Order: sequence, then C-alpha cells, then structure tokens
Amino acid sequence: MDKIVECVPNFSEGRDSKVIKAIFDAATSIKSVKVFELEYNADHNRMLFTIIGEPERVLASVFEAIKTATGLIDMNIQKGEHPRIGATDVVPFVPVSGVSMEECVKLSEDLAKRVAEELGIPVFMYEQSAKNPDFRNLADVRVGEFEGFKEKMKKPDFGPGQIHPTAGAIVIGARKYLVAFNVNLDTSDIEIAKDIAGKIREKNGGLPGVKALGFNVNKKAQVSMNLVDFEKTNFDEAYRAVENEAKARGVGIESSEIYGMIPLDAVVRAIKTTFKADTFKSDQILEKKIYE
Amino acid sequence: MDKIVECVPNFSEGRDSKVIKAIFDAATSIKSVKVFELEYNADHNRMLFTIIGEPERVLASVFEAIKTATGLIDMNIQKGEHPRIGATDVVPFVPVSGVSMEECVKLSEDLAKRVAEELGIPVFMYEQSAKNPDFRNLADVRVGEFEGFKEKMKKPDFGPGQIHPTAGAIVIGARKYLVAFNVNLDTSDIEIAKDIAGKIREKNGGLPGVKALGFNVNKKAQVSMNLVDFEKTNFDEAYRAVENEAKARGVGIESSEIYGMIPLDAVVRAIKTTFKADTFKSDQILEKKIYE
Repeated sequence: MDKIVECVPNFSEGRDSKVIKAIFDAATSIKSVKVFELEYNADHNRMLFTIIGEPERVLASVFEAIKTATGLIDMNIQKGEHPRIGATDVVPFVPVSGVSMEECVKLSEDLAKRVAEELGIPVFMYEQSAKNPDFRNLADVRVGEFEGFKEKMKKPDFGPGQIHPTAGAIVIGARKYLVAFNVNLDTSDIEIAKDIAGKIREKNGGLPGVKALGFNVNKKAQVSMNLVDFEKTNFDEAYRAVENEAKARGVGIESSEIYGMIPLDAVVRAIKTTFKADTFKSDQILEKKIYE
Repeated sequence: MDKIVECVPNFSEGRDSKVIKAIFDAATSIKSVKVFELEYNADHNRMLFTIIGEPERVLASVFEAIKTATGLIDMNIQKGEHPRIGATDVVPFVPVSGVSMEECVKLSEDLAKRVAEELGIPVFMYEQSAKNPDFRNLADVRVGEFEGFKEKMKKPDFGPGQIHPTAGAIVIGARKYLVAFNVNLDTSDIEIAKDIAGKIREKNGGLPGVKALGFNVNKKAQVSMNLVDFEKTNFDEAYRAVENEAKARGVGIESSEIYGMIPLDAVVRAIKTTFKADTFKSDQILEKKIYE
C-alpha cells in the first residue's frame, strides 16, 4: 500500500449502543481499510474512531458512517456536554504515508461534495482545507453550535444554505498528524516542568509546532507536549530541547513516553536526525517488505 | 502476521539464467511469502535470495527451491570460486518478529528432516541449530567441500551417511539477525577508525556481539560494524560507543549508515533506549495496524 491516510470522524452519539455499533459497522463495511480505537462517552454524548487505509477507500468508509449517522441521529433532541454542530460533527483527514497535504485537502473536498450532494448536508471546510479564514479553527466554526447555526445562516463551503433538519452541518478538513509526547523529569517540582514548557512552546517563540504544558504525574514533574507538525519538530528534537532546559535547571530526564499511535515516518525521521543517518529509509525495514 | 522469519538460501549456481530463474520461481510459487533481493555471481557460481513470511510458509517456499536446485545442479561438474558442499549450499533461518530463536531452531530441524527424507540429501546443522560443536561455524563444516565430503564420510545430523550423488550435502540452521552499521568520522585518518574499531569489538573485550573494522571510504575514516546480536548491542549503543571513543581522540561523527535491511524491532529498541521511552511498542506504529 503506497498511500495511507488516517481519518478520525466524530459523531454526536455516545449513549445508544445500537446507534454506536451501526455507525462503526458502516465504516467497517468497506473492504481493505482498518477501523479501530472506537471511543465513546455518555456525558459528552459523542463517539469517534480511527480509519486508516488507501485514500479512496478511507473516503468510502467514512461516507458510509456519515450516511448511517445521518439516518440515526436527530440533533433536535441530542444533548451532551461536548460542543457540536451536527450528527457527524467533524471529519479530519491526516496524511500518514506517501500522501501530501495537498492530496489530503483534495480528499476532504471530494468527501464534502459527496456529503453535500448525496445527503444534502452543508459542509464547512477547516484547518488546511479552510476556504474562509474564519473557519480555519474548529472552535470558531462551532460557535453557536447546532442550535445557533439555524439562525446564523452561514454560507457553507459546500451544500445548501441551510442546515439539514435533523443532521445539522459537518466540519470537514485536512490536518497534520499530531504526536503526543511526554517527558518526565527526575524531580517532583512541577514549577520546573511549567517553566520548561513555557520556554519550548511555539507560542512563546520556542520550537515550531510544539504545544507544551507542565503537569504533575505520579509525583514527578512532566512536560506534556503535542507536536502538531513533526516534520518541523519531531519527538527526538523535543526530547533534546527538554533535556537541555532541564540540565540548565539542574535536573535530568527520568523517562519519556510516545502516547498513542505514531506514523512510521516520525520514527524513521528520529533515527535519521539522532544518528546523522541521512540515508536511512522506511523501505529498509524488513517487515515493510512483506506488505508491498 | 504475528510471526515473521527470514530465510536466505544459497545455491551453487550463478551462471545459467534459466536455472537461476527456475530456483527463484520455485520459492515464489508458495503464496503469502515475499521473495526478494536475488543476487548471483558468475565467478562465484553462486546465487542467494531472501524469503520472509510466516514460519511454515517460508519453510514450504525454501523447500520448493531446494527441490528444484536438486534436480538442476550437478555438483560433479559445478566449479566456482566460492566454497560449497552442495547444490543447495547453506540455508539459515533468522527470527524477525514474534518468533523466538528456539522456534527458528525447530523450523530448521523440520526443514532438515524433510530434505533428508524426501530428497535423500544429508544435512549438517550449524550455528544455533548445531548438534555437533564441530559444525557450529559454517567455514568448519565446509572444509573439504563437495569433493572432500565424499571421502570424509562425516555422519550428518539428518539423512543418509553418504552424500547425494549430484546435490552433495546441505548446511541448515538458525542464526540471529545481522545489522550492518557504519559510522563515518570527520577525519581522513584511517588509523583512528582502526583504533576505535579495535577498542569496541567484542573480541578485544568491547561490546557484546560487535565485529568492527576501520576503513577509508570517500576519503573519510569509517568504523564499519556487524552487529550479530542487536538485542545485546544495538546500533544506537554502537553509535554512542564510537562517539565517545572519537571524542576521546579529538574527532567527531560526520554521519552513520544502516546498511541493508533491519528488523522493526531493532528500530523500536533504539528509540526506547535513546529516549528512555520504556513503554514504546511497535504496535504504536500506525502503519502496522493496517496489516494486522
């Protein structure tokens, strides 16, 4: 499989197990994609899962799930803690392997057109796919939520100029892969972790694409990071930055943790950078051969 | 695919393209294994290729190749520079993923029994599969070669007490994966590379499982290593050892190179060790999900 994308659709249902199962099963009905990590929460009244596979197959899979959610969720009666604008709330596509961001933007537009035409749902494009800069940030699109959208009559990027009577609207787009990475210091002093986090986060002029916070986890100070663009700052670079800042404050690193899934490309990049192994390629990994 | 082994059979034919193709095709006739990296050399009159896949499928694949080689190569007329004892000369099995060395030894014995019973060829077990310590090293088994074996009447581990009239004998066994790793110094002084190689190699009390030599490559001094047991000394540890020795001699590292294929497990281990990321697992790599 040369091209792999990830899609993490979020739906406004986290209570009715039959509906949750029906939406998940619709996604798995498309062959040769992998659907996994189903999560749902009754308080939020929300569910999400991950689809990976070839771009066109992932699009087909998520479309089936959206179609099913459209038929089963009525936003007029849906209530939950999590903000939302539709039965299918948000659908991000993420390049994983052999796929450019441009291809992912195109894929998100193809899905948006299909959703608009076949299901009659208005679609707002966000993140890398945003056509209107006001909609680039998800939180901005969601202002007013399902109920507010009725009156605001916002002009969507695709589909009708009014919300779907039961399914509301959908936010679709492409974004980069987010790597969650934590570094635990050999001190219990949370102020040191907060101080280091403040120093390395992009917002304060630190490392590009790095969001960082200081926490106290298991009585150790932790620098908890989201790396929103690992091609700019990868986990190995974040590690060394934290290590340097820690050293300057007289503390060391006890452990680090890559949290959740990570693209092979991020791992290969870390090897290349750390060991000056510029020629190293993922094609050299033996297990990859067997799946070519 | 939970269990993956590699097999790199060597055959005593490197000239007749029809025979080379027939042996390679026989290996590929078994489904769901990957056969690749066919290499042959006319001077050596020898060929080899790599098979990876599930243990039982790899055994079936290499057996087909051995059967074909047995029918097509006559050792009484075969001549070449490379030492050999049979039409199929040597067959190593290597654990790649989810397979223990014990399972690989068992697999090598299963193949040896099948070769002995169905093809009537005597088999000598080497490396981790050796039953007779005299046969542990391949070079020791090969002493006398095909012609010498006729007289020596060595007692094989499996099969008849005399060589097969045209196919000779076969050496089969299990060994660990060998990682080829080079580190280029920022000096042209080859003596420094030789000195560092001498310091880190296992033979001189250095790092376990490390063979090392100093070379001059592209006008740079290179420490060239074979890591014969990456579970004991992995490439990241070898890198740091060379880096420390280089620093002590006032030189630095210009680049490093992982040469050829490498198991994912070695890459994951390097990440774990270098970044103190003890919880990191290959299952966290997104691309792996799709093939489960």
